[in-house]
Amino acid sequence: MIRVGIVGGTGYTGSELLRLLVGHSQVSLVAITSRAEAGTSVADIFAHLRGRLDLRFTEPDLSLLSECDLVFFATPNGTAMKLVPDLLEQGARVIDLAADFRLKDSAQWEHWYGMPHACPDLLREAVYGLPELNRDAIRAARLVANPGCYPTAVTLGFLPLLEAGLVDPGWLVADAKSGVSGAGRKASVGILMAEVGESFKAYAVSGHRHLPEISQNLVPFAKDGLQLTFVPHLVPMIRGIEATLYARLDRSGSDLQTLFEERYAAEPFVDVLPTGSHPETRSVRGSNHCRIAVNEPLNRGTVVVQSVIDNLVKGAAGQAVQNMNLMFGFDESVALEGVALLP
Amino acid sequence: MIRVGIVGGTGYTGSELLRLLVGHSQVSLVAITSRAEAGTSVADIFAHLRGRLDLRFTEPDLSLLSECDLVFFATPNGTAMKLVPDLLEQGARVIDLAADFRLKDSAQWEHWYGMPHACPDLLREAVYGLPELNRDAIRAARLVANPGCYPTAVTLGFLPLLEAGLVDPGWLVADAKSGVSGAGRKASVGILMAEVGESFKAYAVSGHRHLPEISQNLVPFAKDGLQLTFVPHLVPMIRGIEATLYARLDRSGSDLQTLFEERYAAEPFVDVLPTGSHPETRSVRGSNHCRIAVNEPLNRGTVVVQSVIDNLVKGAAGQAVQNMNLMFGFDESVALEGVALLP
Amino acid sequence: MIRVGIVGGTGYTGSELLRLLVGHSQVSLVAITSRAEAGTSVADIFAHLRGRLDLRFTEPDLSLLSECDLVFFATPNGTAMKLVPDLLEQGARVIDLAADFRLKDSAQWEHWYGMPHACPDLLREAVYGLPELNRDAIRAARLVANPGCYPTAVTLGFLPLLEAGLVDPGWLVADAKSGVSGAGRKASVGILMAEVGESFKAYAVSGHRHLPEISQNLVPFAKDGLQLTFVPHLVPMIRGIEATLYARLDRSGSDLQTLFEERYAAEPFVDVLPTGSHPETRSVRGSNHCRIAVNEPLNRGTVVVQSVIDNLVKGAAGQAVQNMNLMFGFDESVALEGVALLP
Amino acid sequence: MIRVGIVGGTGYTGSELLRLLVGHSQVSLVAITSRAEAGTSVADIFAHLRGRLDLRFTEPDLSLLSECDLVFFATPNGTAMKLVPDLLEQGARVIDLAADFRLKDSAQWEHWYGMPHACPDLLREAVYGLPELNRDAIRAARLVANPGCYPTAVTLGFLPLLEAGLVDPGWLVADAKSGVSGAGRKASVGILMAEVGESFKAYAVSGHRHLPEISQNLVPFAKDGLQLTFVPHLVPMIRGIEATLYARLDRSGSDLQTLFEERYAAEPFVDVLPTGSHPETRSVRGSNHCRIAVNEPLNRGTVVVQSVIDNLVKGAAGQAVQNMNLMFGFDESVALEGVALLP
Repeated sequence: MIRVGIVGGTGYTGSELLRLLVGHSQVSLVAITSRAEAGTSVADIFAHLRGRLDLRFTEPDLSLLSECDLVFFATPNGTAMKLVPDLLEQGARVIDLAADFRLKDSAQWEHWYGMPHACPDLLREAVYGLPELNRDAIRAARLVANPGCYPTAVTLGFLPLLEAGLVDPGWLVADAKSGVSGAGRKASVGILMAEVGESFKAYAVSGHRHLPEISQNLVPFAKDGLQLTFVPHLVPMIRGIEATLYARLDRSGSDLQTLFEERYAAEPFVDVLPTGSHPETRSVRGSNHCRIAVNEPLNRGTVVVQSVIDNLVKGAAGQAVQNMNLMFGFDESVALEGVALLP
Repeated sequence: MIRVGIVGGTGYTGSELLRLLVGHSQVSLVAITSRAEAGTSVADIFAHLRGRLDLRFTEPDLSLLSECDLVFFATPNGTAMKLVPDLLEQGARVIDLAADFRLKDSAQWEHWYGMPHACPDLLREAVYGLPELNRDAIRAARLVANPGCYPTAVTLGFLPLLEAGLVDPGWLVADAKSGVSGAGRKASVGILMAEVGESFKAYAVSGHRHLPEISQNLVPFAKDGLQLTFVPHLVPMIRGIEATLYARLDRSGSDLQTLFEERYAAEPFVDVLPTGSHPETRSVRGSNHCRIAVNEPLNRGTVVVQSVIDNLVKGAAGQAVQNMNLMFGFDESVALEGVALLP
Repeated sequence: MIRVGIVGGTGYTGSELLRLLVGHSQVSLVAITSRAEAGTSVADIFAHLRGRLDLRFTEPDLSLLSECDLVFFATPNGTAMKLVPDLLEQGARVIDLAADFRLKDSAQWEHWYGMPHACPDLLREAVYGLPELNRDAIRAARLVANPGCYPTAVTLGFLPLLEAGLVDPGWLVADAKSGVSGAGRKASVGILMAEVGESFKAYAVSGHRHLPEISQNLVPFAKDGLQLTFVPHLVPMIRGIEATLYARLDRSGSDLQTLFEERYAAEPFVDVLPTGSHPETRSVRGSNHCRIAVNEPLNRGTVVVQSVIDNLVKGAAGQAVQNMNLMFGFDESVALEGVALLP
Repeated sequence: MIRVGIVGGTGYTGSELLRLLVGHSQVSLVAITSRAEAGTSVADIFAHLRGRLDLRFTEPDLSLLSECDLVFFATPNGTAMKLVPDLLEQGARVIDLAADFRLKDSAQWEHWYGMPHACPDLLREAVYGLPELNRDAIRAARLVANPGCYPTAVTLGFLPLLEAGLVDPGWLVADAKSGVSGAGRKASVGILMAEVGESFKAYAVSGHRHLPEISQNLVPFAKDGLQLTFVPHLVPMIRGIEATLYARLDRSGSDLQTLFEERYAAEPFVDVLPTGSHPETRSVRGSNHCRIAVNEPLNRGTVVVQSVIDNLVKGAAGQAVQNMNLMFGFDESVALEGVALLP
């Protein structure tokens, strides 16, 4: 049994962490902080947790948090980096669900996030928490940077192709689509139901913060340089990401299906669908799975990969729990066994 | 460990049963039948069950089913009644999620369901599976009639008021709203997304089959006769029922909050919210809870009860599992501990 | 051709007014004001108006507005009452789409709206702009209080019954449901898509501001007192209101269908559907119609009326244009001929 | 005033034609046919047309149709080709909203549509009804093949780039997304709200019928061969198509904005948004516009075009009316002036 704290629990990733952790047999939840809601019962804000969680939001309190074995940050970008150095020093381990420790290059981080980084030295130590890429390092990590939602879906989709050197890394296209919970739980006209319901659009076409993160994941497999065009879109639904990925095959006719199946054969949370499948986001709603299909339409030399996740689970809180399980030697699937909610 | 079969597993209540049962430690699923899909792997139709269930649909086969300790029927109305007598005779117990055994009066059943009943004698034996009303009888039952979705929400909302004799049973109004999964998984223009999305309407205003079922539940508490107006509506969402109930109080000012809290204090799946609450269907999405709030607006002598459930869980498959747990002496909450999926 | 100004044009009622007025042959739009967006082109905020409207938001400027023949207020409650007295004095006529002039009783207004009224004397002069009730007075009015969305749907549904004295006004129930655009275009967590999508709930059960407005409309037909229970609900869709109304008939068996058809025979925007119909909100999406059906289910003495409108059209901007047409002697339907957008 | 008939009026393109044509000053609607609904009043099926259209569905009757100046076919693929030769011979002109006459190559047509073509000779005569490409030919045409929804959005987006020879036609990607009304109004489990709501997926990845149609439009501008990968997706909304298009620029830094603006400067229904815009499908809901934005993200040599239309209007019925207006010398915008319905 480990002692766990959550900093910033009033957003969707925070509440999703709670949903998963109340069912985790090895976790004792000792603190959940929120400046705005300090004193309020968690169940008063999140009615679905009534009867399952008897905890109140508290002010962020370093002394309490430093007694935890593990602290999750489910805060806006720029918050974790201010508290993490002290927490690590006092012996707590940390999983940051925000972006503070995702990029290795501090200059690039500062460019994309528009602020100075408070502890650039820790960028090197932080382990990028994609188990399919870094499982062993995660096990040993003090500080895990939990991946972004789009980067999870896109990286898992491109990875087998790039690792195998089958595609030209010089022109990759990732056309990704997300439900609106990805934009967070904040008062903003742009994500009102009357604004985004019954409509579809691209956004951030000129450049999105997840682009350098995806590139960082893939560039080791692109010796002559990687060029990725990444366009996110907003879908009128709450949960789910679908990424459709396009790349040019060096040669047509490879057995892509076997490539993908073998790459992910041992992965508990990556499911390669049969040839010809069209993964639906609902098939992973509430679950930690990434479901993937790969095709070469009409054998014309272009490979199309479809990759779906639940942005709040494999794209955030579920992956964080998976990382926690690895870090503390639990079975990797504890608290992540729930079947997706369909329909 | 009991052996369980499901007849008719390709609809939403069938797949929801599967979602719950794969997580049940005491259940061995031995057969799931579907004439139309016999031979097909369940996971090929329900992708969310991939990796969790290695079973194929089979033809309904009495000899196989009769070896089960329990058989669930998740079939259209009129199917179970043809097979149940034989199954019972051979020692299986049965929970019917359809309407075949919900009404005690066979004439009334035949009027509302438009066909002769195949085994009217069993109507008397069948136990109406609302644990909050019939827990002890369910424990001992061979045959449980699992309640309808609307009747569950409406009955639980009216029950404390009628049991206490606080309202006039001579004019009750139940204005109920359901997501579209309540209409089932069948090819029908009327429930296409392009027909029911972004729109709202009442239906069956002139009379709905759930009216006699609700009346049957409540009439024992109405010595001078019960008159209920029940109007269902279709909501452009997938899961969830909200029922807003109206009744005239015999006298204003009773402590309705305490009445409801005490009535349901021992119930694991009925949650009475604080005064002034507005239960949301999403707070029970995927969970077996019924959440209820009670008000007397402006102290004018009219009581308003709001009652929400997930139509596929407490309104169907979850309640069926709860009934199974009671029938076989398991803890009532086994496989029903999952927190609702919100947002 | 009349000169028209709009105060407060960045919300949904304002943009809907624009949508209708750009197609009105007798209207010259001379000003649209918004403090927050002064200087911005209207089409930059409302892309659907690109190419149809070459106007910029301006600061509210009394001198410009007072040169208008008509000024619409599409502002939050409490704004119009501060400017209207001056405008009227300078000869402009006014239609207020907010609630400032809807109630005749200033004490009641102040109770429900929580502020002192700036010009209670004008409450008497203001004409309640429901053409089906007050057509002649609207024609002559200087100041029209455009009805609320729920009051429009509920009043039109109850009116024939109460005028004819067929129901007991001592216990009326109005269970009303609205799409989320009714909550306006404002930054608020409670109306985010991730909060209200795929969910349904009642709100304001303990009392809603539209209750006194509806009561004021109906009380003249209830000589022994009116008692109405009104519960609004939030539907996960953008546009549309459905109100299901319940009343006890003094005697069963009246020809309710003929009653309704005759009452509204001459009304261009009230459509009584055939017996047995279930009006859908989508059948009036974008149109100024109210569609109504009336039933006495199972001939049990309770009448059920279903009434649907588009909350932004007949419930706001469309009715305002209808009132303008009456005030200035145009054909009542000008700019309101568009067919509803279905699907 | 011309006499117009519609064959197959019970689907979404048929009802959308009706919505537009009842507001057309030069059109007299003389017949609308449906085998299944012969005898039924149109307004009984499409409630939004109540009071606007006093017409009943009739059996398809060649003698009646041949008296029309123009016949629209809003039928499933393979129907129009059986009737069109006779109609043309008798002097009627025809606009087919299905795919029967969209491809010039009959072998390719038969491959993609899986049936023999009934009148391959007419494929040559038929004019592809995209006014932005073929305006003059449409004016003179006897037979117009109204374009598919995806091909309209994709062609208009790629056209300026290919005409100007700025991109490599050897690897184009079109990632397109459509609301569910694109799948038609037919009883099918796959498009139930409970199946497609709150979910997102690609479909037809291995090859979609609109691929050869788009290719046919673009190949004249690709002297060394065109290779297009086209992947359609299903969006949980009713109306709207968004296509995000990717191509490699021959050289970076061209003034793409001016290119697009000049190409479409004279087009009444193509609107090029300012640099940096993200067109939303709702901005064209119910309108005949195509809104387009063009970007070169991070100046990396890849151009991204976003193109949105309403699949039922510019993607079907609206474009058909635009074509009719051209064929009969009416102003091109008659009956297409309505502003999009937003929100």
